[in-house]
Amino acid sequence: MAHTIRDKARLLARVRRLKGQAEAVERALEEERGCADVLMLVASMRGAINGLTVELMEDHIRHHIVNPDNEQDAARASGAKELIEVLRTYLK
Amino acid sequence: MAHTIRDKARLLARVRRLKGQAEAVERALEEERGCADVLMLVASMRGAINGLTVELMEDHIRHHIVNPDNEQDAARASGAKELIEVLRTYLK
Amino acid sequence: MAHTIRDKARLLARVRRLKGQAEAVERALEEERGCADVLMLVASMRGAINGLTVELMEDHIRHHIVNPDNEQDAARASGAKELIEVLRTYLK
Amino acid sequence: MAHTIRDKARLLARVRRLKGQAEAVERALEEERGCADVLMLVASMRGAINGLTVELMEDHIRHHIVNPDNEQDAARASGAKELIEVLRTYLK
Repeated sequence: MAHTIRDKARLLARVRRLKGQAEAVERALEEERGCADVLMLVASMRGAINGLTVELMEDHIRHHIVNPDNEQDAARASGAKELIEVLRTYLK
Repeated sequence: MAHTIRDKARLLARVRRLKGQAEAVERALEEERGCADVLMLVASMRGAINGLTVELMEDHIRHHIVNPDNEQDAARASGAKELIEVLRTYLK
Repeated sequence: MAHTIRDKARLLARVRRLKGQAEAVERALEEERGCADVLMLVASMRGAINGLTVELMEDHIRHHIVNPDNEQDAARASGAKELIEVLRTYLK
Repeated sequence: MAHTIRDKARLLARVRRLKGQAEAVERALEEERGCADVLMLVASMRGAINGLTVELMEDHIRHHIVNPDNEQDAARASGAKELIEVLRTYLK
């Protein structure tokens, strides 16, 4: 990674929340809560994973391919910007 | 839940593996490993979540709706069996 | 299938809309429209496929397993109702 | 788009196959074939849409952002190559 301190902090916060969600699923199973409740917790983990994925992909595009905010080549900047938007739509 | 002891043990093993995968992502971010590596770890978490989901859904169908293995009504048994197969295809 | 006339009409309307969306993607490719536009059209097809899937699964549960609206066994009725809700959350 | 003639032909072949799959789902519904059969046809459409998506994203990266095969900047080339691999893993 080695992106920015701020990116790193944000990604770490996301992954720690994900770990907390896994622990909530574990507790729900141990306490033998209803299947539907457990499945809803797992569905929210899936949403969190998609959110983490799109953030990692966006950071990768910005830091290792083309950063639309400071790219000189206008066509590349706009191509990278469009890709980030498309990925957000796909993984939301 | 309150399914069977065996189901519960298997589901708990899955969710603990998932927690371990979240910890691996956390370490990878802290050690500033490459984006592509982190993304591959996250992709494998997503696969594990799909596996857990399909297992929870299958258990729910068997224990709270119709268990194809001991249902008297043949049409319902076959309907439940088909649904389980379809869910496995969708979430594999 | 052989569900109800009304279910069938609704499912056919969905799949014809899907065919229309595929034709829109085809035209966009032929007219060499921008990648991002084409990708957005394909993303909306994916949403439509998820919608069709959840409707087919719900119809399958209601007509071939347990219909929560007229099931005598209250536990089964509630199990089927919960599964339908969970599938809607997963595939929305 | 306006990529290459060869890319365009390949994408058009994919989208026409997708249209054919939508027509197969339509026929299956009209002939009142079993739910499970229809759901399997819809599942294969979903797979085809993921395949089309990853191909469109890869073409977009190559033609509008960075083409790893002829990029001078080695870091960008490798960043784009990694992203294409990750997208293939996610959308396969």
